[in-house]
Amino acid sequence: MFNTYDVIVVGAGHAGCEAAHAAGTMGSSVLLITMNMQTIAQMSCNPAMGGVAKGQIVREIDALGGQSGIISDKTMIQFRMLNRSKGPAMWSPRCQSDRMLFAQEWRDTLERNPNVDFWQDTVNEILVKDGRVTGVKTAMGVEIMAKTVVLTNGTFLNGRMFIGEKTFGGGRTGERSATGLTEQLVQLGFESGRMKTGTPPRIDGRSLDYSRMEEQPGDEIPGKFSYTDTVPLTKQRSCWITYTEQGVHDVLKEGFEQSPMFTGRIKGLGPRYCPSIEDKINRFADKDRHQIFVEPEGWNTVEVYVNGFSTSLPEVIQYRALTKIAGFENAKMFRPGYAVEYDFFPPTQLKPTLETHIVANLFFAGQINGTTGYEEAACQGLMAGINAHQNAHEEKPFTVGRSEGYIGVLIDDLITKGTEEPYRMFTSRAEFRTLLRQDNADLRLTEKGYSIGLASEDRVERTRAKQAAVESLRQELRDIKLRPDEVNGWLESKNSSALREKAPLYNLVKRPELDTDDIAELIEMAYEKTDGAAAVLLSRDVLEQTVIEVKYDDYLARERENAAKLSRWENLDIPGTFDFDKVKALSFEGREKLKKLRPNTIGQATRISGVSPSDISILLVYMGR
Amino acid sequence: MFNTYDVIVVGAGHAGCEAAHAAGTMGSSVLLITMNMQTIAQMSCNPAMGGVAKGQIVREIDALGGQSGIISDKTMIQFRMLNRSKGPAMWSPRCQSDRMLFAQEWRDTLERNPNVDFWQDTVNEILVKDGRVTGVKTAMGVEIMAKTVVLTNGTFLNGRMFIGEKTFGGGRTGERSATGLTEQLVQLGFESGRMKTGTPPRIDGRSLDYSRMEEQPGDEIPGKFSYTDTVPLTKQRSCWITYTEQGVHDVLKEGFEQSPMFTGRIKGLGPRYCPSIEDKINRFADKDRHQIFVEPEGWNTVEVYVNGFSTSLPEVIQYRALTKIAGFENAKMFRPGYAVEYDFFPPTQLKPTLETHIVANLFFAGQINGTTGYEEAACQGLMAGINAHQNAHEEKPFTVGRSEGYIGVLIDDLITKGTEEPYRMFTSRAEFRTLLRQDNADLRLTEKGYSIGLASEDRVERTRAKQAAVESLRQELRDIKLRPDEVNGWLESKNSSALREKAPLYNLVKRPELDTDDIAELIEMAYEKTDGAAAVLLSRDVLEQTVIEVKYDDYLARERENAAKLSRWENLDIPGTFDFDKVKALSFEGREKLKKLRPNTIGQATRISGVSPSDISILLVYMGR
Repeated sequence: MFNTYDVIVVGAGHAGCEAAHAAGTMGSSVLLITMNMQTIAQMSCNPAMGGVAKGQIVREIDALGGQSGIISDKTMIQFRMLNRSKGPAMWSPRCQSDRMLFAQEWRDTLERNPNVDFWQDTVNEILVKDGRVTGVKTAMGVEIMAKTVVLTNGTFLNGRMFIGEKTFGGGRTGERSATGLTEQLVQLGFESGRMKTGTPPRIDGRSLDYSRMEEQPGDEIPGKFSYTDTVPLTKQRSCWITYTEQGVHDVLKEGFEQSPMFTGRIKGLGPRYCPSIEDKINRFADKDRHQIFVEPEGWNTVEVYVNGFSTSLPEVIQYRALTKIAGFENAKMFRPGYAVEYDFFPPTQLKPTLETHIVANLFFAGQINGTTGYEEAACQGLMAGINAHQNAHEEKPFTVGRSEGYIGVLIDDLITKGTEEPYRMFTSRAEFRTLLRQDNADLRLTEKGYSIGLASEDRVERTRAKQAAVESLRQELRDIKLRPDEVNGWLESKNSSALREKAPLYNLVKRPELDTDDIAELIEMAYEKTDGAAAVLLSRDVLEQTVIEVKYDDYLARERENAAKLSRWENLDIPGTFDFDKVKALSFEGREKLKKLRPNTIGQATRISGVSPSDISILLVYMGR
Repeated sequence: MFNTYDVIVVGAGHAGCEAAHAAGTMGSSVLLITMNMQTIAQMSCNPAMGGVAKGQIVREIDALGGQSGIISDKTMIQFRMLNRSKGPAMWSPRCQSDRMLFAQEWRDTLERNPNVDFWQDTVNEILVKDGRVTGVKTAMGVEIMAKTVVLTNGTFLNGRMFIGEKTFGGGRTGERSATGLTEQLVQLGFESGRMKTGTPPRIDGRSLDYSRMEEQPGDEIPGKFSYTDTVPLTKQRSCWITYTEQGVHDVLKEGFEQSPMFTGRIKGLGPRYCPSIEDKINRFADKDRHQIFVEPEGWNTVEVYVNGFSTSLPEVIQYRALTKIAGFENAKMFRPGYAVEYDFFPPTQLKPTLETHIVANLFFAGQINGTTGYEEAACQGLMAGINAHQNAHEEKPFTVGRSEGYIGVLIDDLITKGTEEPYRMFTSRAEFRTLLRQDNADLRLTEKGYSIGLASEDRVERTRAKQAAVESLRQELRDIKLRPDEVNGWLESKNSSALREKAPLYNLVKRPELDTDDIAELIEMAYEKTDGAAAVLLSRDVLEQTVIEVKYDDYLARERENAAKLSRWENLDIPGTFDFDKVKALSFEGREKLKKLRPNTIGQATRISGVSPSDISILLVYMGR
């Protein structure tokens, strides 16, 4: 009934969709198996993409040739560049999405991919022969063969939902869970654990009083995620901000005795940086209010998402507490919030390609690896899909380094350090975050994506053109010089000190008080004054990128040098067959950790907790360095 | 947490959506409870609305102020008026729908209704006090109070799916079933039974060879369902026709031993007129082929619906048989077909309002009453929603007579005769089908819908204007006379016999060889010739309606007379408190049936099998007639 596929992807959330699309685009025959074809690419949590560090990941996915950026652009209802007032490493694109359109656009995108087939079913067993995965077996009893399998099961593996003292089986509300697969993987030798996450109640927007909240509109000139020619929004919908207060907290506390978390019925750890409201009250007892961010669910729907009010307290408590929030006095719920507990597999069991150590050609991506967040899931799916294709075609593994992208940081963190609680990306996790900016993800990654056949010709040409334009503008900034009498009047108008002698534009660009708009004026003026050099046709992208590069020139140069130093370690491969037991001089703990995590490079080995600098020296000596 | 609602509607399929919308529009506070807010108004079966007799029902729903017609118009991808070559009683509108858009439009429509609230949960108990329903209790453990409750549970009550020898709990593939409610209703004294239905496999349209099939495009000038100002299509998608053949049947037969139907594992009866392909092969062994109708699932999606190939044979058999159909040689399945068995409640337990006899203010609508079909479900939902509102506000019951609409025929059939197998509407079920045409549903029902506050002012004015225009045109046809020399040349060109003396237009309209287009020409010509009477601004609707009325004048008059005669019986009410035991002269069987079915009128009593004409005479005498 089925041919043997190159890649089977199990699950059609953010991770599964990116995996299927990537492998299919690279030329693999792909089968995407989902429990329900009507719920492909459901945003189970809030209707938004991006945010701090996460927006950078979406840009990186886009630069490599993934689809999350394009689909976000096509289905967003609001765009904001967060942290514009901070340094450019912190600028982070974020959008609100139309939940229905987002899912529909993903399905359309996958259907347009001629190499992607679909099968609606539940996988409850993987087929393994001689330590290699050979396919899957489904609830329907079908066996489907494949060279590689990517598991992206999200919260569905033995998923259990909790509301107060009640509990239900299921991966999401109204949906079923998947059983059997965890048990089989454990038999095969995998370690598994439990994690939990939660969602807030959904509310009828018609019942809210927005006049009691603070409006948060989108950017005046909205940006977008993708480096391709997707179109920015011309109209937007606003979000709204309100706050809990003591009265809200008092009501919530009434439910603490029935809380599945506080009473120990939920064993799994939840996401520290996206805690439930009861957690926030409990942990930050001194705070008398918490922010509530009210997000519309789409262009037309009245449903709203109450971000910041995730809870698994009894629904009556949820309701009574909600109605004490300013603007929520008459709130009607569509459904209560709930917590969901699910199986994950500690990601230290993975290679940098997201292939498992135990079963060859089996890949894990997304929440199954203990992460949280759409963007974190999507980029893992993308990397797993790419590497599944590479394995199926006996091509080289494809990885992104820690200094190349947040994707590299994320995967290296996961496989090297593991995670006890749902792992979320932060800019602080990256040692070279000034290099990993949202503005340069294309310059960092598109050539890489192109080299493996994922990023398109068109995309790489666009990137090369941008790169060339940036370099040429940079050169011009050095070449064009202005005299004090040409520019001092303008400088004065900008509260910037006067020039005492002729100076290149470059020097002025570095002044912190001049922003990109000022510099655009300055360049225009300079071209007029010099009456020369055919003006480069400046796109905003090129200008912004150049300004950032010039302003932080020295700093970035130093960072690149540091990164290069470290990458020497990263390029020192440790063979997969390396026998750590033979290196007698290693510390006991170091050897155990190295044997368990099987780092692929010396760089990765240095980041393993318990592996000491002297262990590294010993390894280097042993390897002939 | 909840106020007491006027109406709680359980289930958000075709029946539930119409019920919630109707009651909300009439002014009731409504709570719509659905297992999953992402799957409101899912078309679980094929992506189409209308068809023979069913299209008339959609027109009737529309005329009363329901939404199925408007939503179908907004989301269709193809329209055809079936049976145009037959008499106008057989003309039946039918459309192909975009499955996703249809669901989305319903959700938007309900969200725009300010009286409709939503709650995502599963009802597993109704609350009853002193023989009246007082609310529901949900899986979440919430009790919600209401004056009336409408149950529209579809195939979800103890739903079980079957594919070959495998079976799964669930109301639809990928979704859960609802348990507990049937058991409670049975304890309350309700009789329940099992029925089954099925769906075909879903196919990847990219894998089909359409050059081997016959194209079925939409009408050249597409019509629409609603009498409101919805806009007809300007582009359409085609369907495709192909056939099974002996080779297909041979493969299917290999699976008969594993068929859940043939081996007796499914006990419920399936829809006779929408049988599975294995049923067709089995029952019509002499037919060497069956038609397969390939329906696109929407504007963009590649998914197609293989109408006519419903099956619950093992998926491998399904697949192998499919690939023997012309055009399906390389077919890829998205999922196999399956049968679903579910609980229903014999509808003889209902009043003409769809309220149950046993529990006051409790209504049943849709598949729970043993019907099949979206349109059958929708119109029951509409009627139950209306009557729930009426009960909640102590208003009169609202019913449609058998001579007023198919809706009346359907409900009267259900409550009077019951049904052993899924009940589907046919034109032959109506004794006055020439009166119940798709062209005049507005004239039949809009005033009625307006009188209860459901059909809008605008709608009734539109209907009255049409009515007036038809009457005025009819009069003009009698008034305007043409001389032989004015019209004989034209008549000859139409192969219609010459006039011998001056005659009114009316007489020419009656000629069977002249169709509506001819008559449009004739009227235009007459207006020119008589140089008089300001031409009525003729809409196509008015013209068509008038032509039909004139052509079948005598016949329709006789039918109306018959209907009027019968309606005398229909207007003879039997009081709800009537004690049949007191009427000693009734036959034993007659008395038992009357006691069980509790007919509301003598008319209804006459249609109960087992109630003899002499029983009716006795009743009439007893009631003082």
